[in-house]
Amino acid sequence: MEARKAIGVFDSGIGGLTVVHELTRSLPHEEIIYLGDTARLPYGTKSPETVLRFSRKNLDFLKHKQVKLIVVACNTASSVALPRLQEEEELPVIGVLMPGARAAALVTKTKRVGVIGTTATIHSSAYVKALQGITPDLEIWTQPCPLFVPLVEEGWLDDPITELATKRYLEPLAEFGADALVLGCTHYPLLKDIISRVVGPEVVLVDSARETAAEVMNVLEERGLTNDRGGTGRITVYVTDIPYRFKEVGERFLRRPLEHVEHVEL
Amino acid sequence: MEARKAIGVFDSGIGGLTVVHELTRSLPHEEIIYLGDTARLPYGTKSPETVLRFSRKNLDFLKHKQVKLIVVACNTASSVALPRLQEEEELPVIGVLMPGARAAALVTKTKRVGVIGTTATIHSSAYVKALQGITPDLEIWTQPCPLFVPLVEEGWLDDPITELATKRYLEPLAEFGADALVLGCTHYPLLKDIISRVVGPEVVLVDSARETAAEVMNVLEERGLTNDRGGTGRITVYVTDIPYRFKEVGERFLRRPLEHVEHVEL
Repeated sequence: MEARKAIGVFDSGIGGLTVVHELTRSLPHEEIIYLGDTARLPYGTKSPETVLRFSRKNLDFLKHKQVKLIVVACNTASSVALPRLQEEEELPVIGVLMPGARAAALVTKTKRVGVIGTTATIHSSAYVKALQGITPDLEIWTQPCPLFVPLVEEGWLDDPITELATKRYLEPLAEFGADALVLGCTHYPLLKDIISRVVGPEVVLVDSARETAAEVMNVLEERGLTNDRGGTGRITVYVTDIPYRFKEVGERFLRRPLEHVEHVEL
Repeated sequence: MEARKAIGVFDSGIGGLTVVHELTRSLPHEEIIYLGDTARLPYGTKSPETVLRFSRKNLDFLKHKQVKLIVVACNTASSVALPRLQEEEELPVIGVLMPGARAAALVTKTKRVGVIGTTATIHSSAYVKALQGITPDLEIWTQPCPLFVPLVEEGWLDDPITELATKRYLEPLAEFGADALVLGCTHYPLLKDIISRVVGPEVVLVDSARETAAEVMNVLEERGLTNDRGGTGRITVYVTDIPYRFKEVGERFLRRPLEHVEHVEL
């Protein structure tokens, strides 16, 4: 009966719905319970201690919902809190960081990789450690891009302001000579077109959401936890705050209507 | 002995230190206890219910510190939570909204006023109600500017990206014919130069922080609560999270070194 349980996913907000979107593509029968900590978002500008404290609360909430596996669909929480959560927890806990790092290490030919993310993600150096753990002689260029999240939330996806900010952040990448760039924040895949235009077509953009869904599929298979029931799995979304334009922005990430949404206080 | 007590100030983050800066200019002898709810910031993108819940926690913390008056140095909290806080509380509670609205109503000759702020502040319509409560035939143009806070925190105060975003948000103001613009967010006074360049010198920029400090001075005098002790009052800053670059950004707002900082969990 373990296999019939839901997959739990949490993020600081609703950007993690990009991971849910990828999960529904690879694992359409799975039930998914998502928690977005929208009352405390963003995590990306906060200290590691605070991010760990919030992450523990989110994980406890999902465990209470009887999930079989937990995805930390937030790059910041994956960077600064994941090892501790995995130590403390018996259920499998999967972050978005390692799948992205592995994909980047695999595709680079120049052995030079770029990583962009929130301030907290970049300053944790978690991607650098993960990448060098996989391929020790990799050279890595990193850049926090704090303007990208509000630009995505404004919906300015193809816009001269976004292009100018993207150039400011990413032009040094060409000089560095990377041929792979990890999009280390769940919001960033929505800027793929503009980022690709700035960094050039020879740079592979690594979308952690997609890589994470593949990892979840592997872990479920290995442990015999894949849901073999037919039909489409239900997606339930819990949020700690329902802010203005929540549905519009959420559906941009999930790429389908948000149907079952509940407000909870943690 | 009531007069010897501190003034309590809270904000969602450290932007409210602009209000503290103005208080120290008008009331140098006053002791100030500041609480920045940096673990839950920003409030500006969240729902009114959540902002009220957080504001009550902040107010309780300051009351516990035995303050004589409380300043809500956050435009979002002043817009969506202040009336409830004032009802529930015996101490005088002063927001940043009314002082700014009064100043704008006073200076406009065209009877057309602009207001900019966070998404939550603008969608609460609190400034519109306050302004029309003062001068019923005022016409009001409003605009949320969600890019401004991250631009200030990047330190891009005089920058082509900031100029482009400012034009996007504020060029309609000229057509509307306003001669006063309320800077309805504590971060915005740091963009005064660029905003003034875009809207033109004939538009008066109303800085709520300065007006609020004047209001606090009046209320203390009326109630005989002004601290008559000599010397410079101590400023103690409590924050619910100490994020990366906290000191650098905080000192940009306070315009002096941050000396007594403590981390608290609420």
